[in-house]
Amino acid sequence: MRVGNGRDRSLLLMNQKEEQKQMALIVQKYGGTSVANVDRIKNVAERVVARKRKGDKLVVVVSALAGTTDQLLKMANSISDRPSGREMDMLLATGEQASVALLAMAIHALGEKAISFTGPQVGIITDESHTKARIIDIGTSRIEKALKENNVVIVAGFQGGTVSGEITTLGRGGSDLTAVALAKAVNAELCEIYTDVEGIYTADPRIVPDAQKLDVISYDEILELASLGAKVMQSRSIEVGKKFNVPILVRSSLNNAQGTLITKENKKMEEVVVSGVALHEGEAKVTIFKVPDRPGTAAKIFKIIAEAGINVDMIIQNKTETNATDISFTVYKNELRRAIDAVEKAACEVGAKNVTCDENIAKVSIVGVGMKSHTGVAAKMFDVLAKNKINIDMISTSEIKISCVVEGDKGKDAMRVMHEAFGLGQGPKKRKKK
Amino acid sequence: MRVGNGRDRSLLLMNQKEEQKQMALIVQKYGGTSVANVDRIKNVAERVVARKRKGDKLVVVVSALAGTTDQLLKMANSISDRPSGREMDMLLATGEQASVALLAMAIHALGEKAISFTGPQVGIITDESHTKARIIDIGTSRIEKALKENNVVIVAGFQGGTVSGEITTLGRGGSDLTAVALAKAVNAELCEIYTDVEGIYTADPRIVPDAQKLDVISYDEILELASLGAKVMQSRSIEVGKKFNVPILVRSSLNNAQGTLITKENKKMEEVVVSGVALHEGEAKVTIFKVPDRPGTAAKIFKIIAEAGINVDMIIQNKTETNATDISFTVYKNELRRAIDAVEKAACEVGAKNVTCDENIAKVSIVGVGMKSHTGVAAKMFDVLAKNKINIDMISTSEIKISCVVEGDKGKDAMRVMHEAFGLGQGPKKRKKK
Repeated sequence: MRVGNGRDRSLLLMNQKEEQKQMALIVQKYGGTSVANVDRIKNVAERVVARKRKGDKLVVVVSALAGTTDQLLKMANSISDRPSGREMDMLLATGEQASVALLAMAIHALGEKAISFTGPQVGIITDESHTKARIIDIGTSRIEKALKENNVVIVAGFQGGTVSGEITTLGRGGSDLTAVALAKAVNAELCEIYTDVEGIYTADPRIVPDAQKLDVISYDEILELASLGAKVMQSRSIEVGKKFNVPILVRSSLNNAQGTLITKENKKMEEVVVSGVALHEGEAKVTIFKVPDRPGTAAKIFKIIAEAGINVDMIIQNKTETNATDISFTVYKNELRRAIDAVEKAACEVGAKNVTCDENIAKVSIVGVGMKSHTGVAAKMFDVLAKNKINIDMISTSEIKISCVVEGDKGKDAMRVMHEAFGLGQGPKKRKKK
Repeated sequence: MRVGNGRDRSLLLMNQKEEQKQMALIVQKYGGTSVANVDRIKNVAERVVARKRKGDKLVVVVSALAGTTDQLLKMANSISDRPSGREMDMLLATGEQASVALLAMAIHALGEKAISFTGPQVGIITDESHTKARIIDIGTSRIEKALKENNVVIVAGFQGGTVSGEITTLGRGGSDLTAVALAKAVNAELCEIYTDVEGIYTADPRIVPDAQKLDVISYDEILELASLGAKVMQSRSIEVGKKFNVPILVRSSLNNAQGTLITKENKKMEEVVVSGVALHEGEAKVTIFKVPDRPGTAAKIFKIIAEAGINVDMIIQNKTETNATDISFTVYKNELRRAIDAVEKAACEVGAKNVTCDENIAKVSIVGVGMKSHTGVAAKMFDVLAKNKINIDMISTSEIKISCVVEGDKGKDAMRVMHEAFGLGQGPKKRKKK
């Protein structure tokens, strides 16, 4: 029953005004868990349609249905130890192609126009590096035509095509990259990344229960957090967002929470010293003892390690005696075996004494653009760790982050005390949109 | 241990000669059951590699893994009652794309070069009729280049692309069509269709245990058999084979049996009167009683039925009284409900008396190019049926086939007595390659 339609009408007018103001070209990206099954696909379709009916023009990037890619990979691996990159791309690209078609059908079923495209169809041109191709150009005419015809444009994430007509994929996190690059290409106002978390948190809520969702974060901060072990988005897509200044909103596809906006840094952000704490437990420490202290020795060692394809993170050199030095560095645990082989070879070549490794380490990092304009942050971090009887093994810093390697079983504790010490857990959220 | 290498060498020379003679460009097609899982894909790869090592150049057309298409269809149907044809094609085309990539990997694993292509990639250009597109052109430059580079060329069956870059599919049996059309386009010596049966039989061996595999059959005969209920290949691909005179060899992917060659008719074939017996139990008979006998009445009735999209097979008109006639015809059982609706409307419009239907019918047919030059075949068929107390309800004939509709539960018996009467069950096979 309706009462007081005079007031209703004025509300309606207000809403219309607001909607007109909001009308925009938006790129949305839905990950594999958001389209894991028929019900979730329908849910995404409903969200998309509701948004379209508010007046926005939408380009929707979709990943493969959760599990599909793994299933295809499993088949490929049971057929060949080293499947060719070209054929892997041919195989894996089918996952996203299926999900865009299904989403288009679900949108049609709700009475709205939609059209799906593969990466090559829509003009996402990449280089020839199969399984990790780089986007070199994006054609927009087909998207623009379809938008003009009032379609929701659905684009298969993660894939592209070469100028010679080969199918390529963009590597891990490729669908995020598709979305951000498309947002730049079509000049969208916003790139929304839908996922199964509500946004970016001051710390991993599974470890730090009072972690707070951030309303806003800078590209540089999220890049540091991502490289430090916070799994939100792949770094490449954030780098592209930063390069072209594409605002990225990370939010959940399962509710209407506001999400976290990734944007360029502003003065307001610097008022907060630390915006997040990250923990990385996937590294191991390798030490080479008594490396002869001659120019070029370290270069020689890390050249051999690089040639073995090992990624090295932190490096510390500590001169212990007149003519020799100890060198420590961290590598990913899953590359440790290969790293040790390479390092032992290197140690032998340069005449070092011996090599040890320690898998029981954890890296705790604090990140914040406010560090640029605040002093004493590192001192406070070291002090808090000391007071909590957590020894620091290695330290590494950048303009906006400080990382400490600590004993492996102390990593989660270290994260929690950092989070508390820098006041990240106290609601209301420390940083608001300006 | 080798003994008598003089003789060995002469054998070797003979083999080489034979191989040189055999060297040819072959199109092979493997259906969904032939690539149902990883082991079967590996089996196909082994067959292909063995053939390549004999010196043949191979273009291999592959269907989707058995079950994949059904699974995709199920998802689509649970999302939409009437999914758009364009999006269905987008979805279903992924099935073949995955299987060509997997087969290429399996061939690589055996040490041979192979490259996979989607329909659009390889230049299979179709019209815009989604889900049942017709091939209008096939580019061959990419295939020829890949063959020249010593690749096994693997092509996704069932699919093509329009000139405007849309993905299309060719409808049921589309992979056979891809294979036959490609064989014509690249001027292959032979198109081999691999399936889960050993070839084409004189009758369905599940019903007629002593059915014999035919070594050779003409396009026209197989077309009649296909339309009469023998499920071997879709008619469209055989029609294309006939039009362009592409020899088609139907054989099993699970053993090395010789298979059945479908080729153009020759004198030798005519020596055999009947080459096969087919049974179709999927039809029902509809009768309209006392249709006023005026010119144009039948046309009116069948126009209404056609407009309802109902396929009509046999039609018989029997004048029962001066001014009225009874009209009977057969339709597919799965279209019977809709047919009755249309027929009752038509009967009402033309002033007929009433409509009945009979689902308990079966159609038995004998087929053979030899009928052209032999007399008394129909008489023999009717006589044998009568002797076996099988009543004939309707009769229809063409130049190379005679069909009789009999009581439904007598269909299999009718098939068996025909098979015996025309000597089809007596090994050795009645018809040899010339």
